[in-house]
Amino acid sequence: MAHFITFEGIEGSGKTTQIAKVAELLRGQGYNVVTTREPGGCPISNAIREILLNPANDALENRAELLLYAAARAQHVAEVIQPALKQGQIVLCDRYTDATLAYQGYGRGLDLDLIEELNTLASGDCRPHLTLLLDMPHETGLKRALERNDTQNMCDEGRFEQESLDFHKRVREGYLFLAQKDPQRMQVIDATGTPAEVSERLIACLQAYLDSGTGS
Amino acid sequence: MAHFITFEGIEGSGKTTQIAKVAELLRGQGYNVVTTREPGGCPISNAIREILLNPANDALENRAELLLYAAARAQHVAEVIQPALKQGQIVLCDRYTDATLAYQGYGRGLDLDLIEELNTLASGDCRPHLTLLLDMPHETGLKRALERNDTQNMCDEGRFEQESLDFHKRVREGYLFLAQKDPQRMQVIDATGTPAEVSERLIACLQAYLDSGTGS
Repeated sequence: MAHFITFEGIEGSGKTTQIAKVAELLRGQGYNVVTTREPGGCPISNAIREILLNPANDALENRAELLLYAAARAQHVAEVIQPALKQGQIVLCDRYTDATLAYQGYGRGLDLDLIEELNTLASGDCRPHLTLLLDMPHETGLKRALERNDTQNMCDEGRFEQESLDFHKRVREGYLFLAQKDPQRMQVIDATGTPAEVSERLIACLQAYLDSGTGS
Repeated sequence: MAHFITFEGIEGSGKTTQIAKVAELLRGQGYNVVTTREPGGCPISNAIREILLNPANDALENRAELLLYAAARAQHVAEVIQPALKQGQIVLCDRYTDATLAYQGYGRGLDLDLIEELNTLASGDCRPHLTLLLDMPHETGLKRALERNDTQNMCDEGRFEQESLDFHKRVREGYLFLAQKDPQRMQVIDATGTPAEVSERLIACLQAYLDSGTGS
């Protein structure tokens, strides 16, 4: 059985660390696991990612940004996600359609119907079976993300981290609203505390999903 | 008065040469002229252009391609075309929305309504006042384009020139159909013969447009 599981959350919510842990655990249980991320996941989408996340591209227009996310997604779905699901693998994806709604819709104030339409165009019928939303206060997340960038000299997500605290607050609230609208698919995980504590909550939720026999 | 004039035509139809001649002529008449092209025209759209036209990106999915053109256009319209028109300049643009309909719609067979919708999303209300379609048999155009690439070591349009002759035939026919649907805006110019002969036809058409007092 194939499972398409997406991880969502604001900057600094610990998605990357947790995806690695979950992948390790599932592989230990004998599952075939693909980990990937958006924007990116394949060479063409990675080239689009570079444009999207480059802090030098501060002239990027909202509509152009939205269309670039959709383009990267269309390529990623067709080249990576759909083939893996067809082979019955578990796909763990760092950000997906909910991120576009949260960041471009709730964060930037772009039309939500338009985003939904572009999400559908880009992803086709490839919808996540389960979405794990790592939730934490936006101040905590942003502080963590900025510290990480300082210590690891990572700046590829810099364009978003330069946004105001209020922007990140709107993104978090947008995510929580999306989870409220679709509570069965989108599970809210408390992402405060140590990585081990968060893993425990996440894995309990994931295990319940796998035991339920959902998937395709 | 501002004028937004687009140049369309298949590969090798001589757009680049003719735009340069027209720009020179209009500047000689005292007009303020901006020449630009799609995909491209500004740094972000040029970065998108590199992805679109790189022959190495042969895995590019049709829908991703369409969304990338729309993204490049949204950026170009907002950053270059609209500001120039607001200043009352003449914008001469090498390819625009008609190219997406001709290449992705008639050439690749993507849904024309979807393309129209993305064209509208990307260009807003920024429609050309005049479109000059440089028309010639597709075999002639493609032969010219391939010779140019050989002699000038140009390969940035390579991904399209690798398409079949039949693809280019469909693109040409698509362009002619678009001109038939909107004959007042889209003028068909015979692009066979010497560059000087083509210029003469083009300039006669352009002068008639300018004399008509159309523009914004």
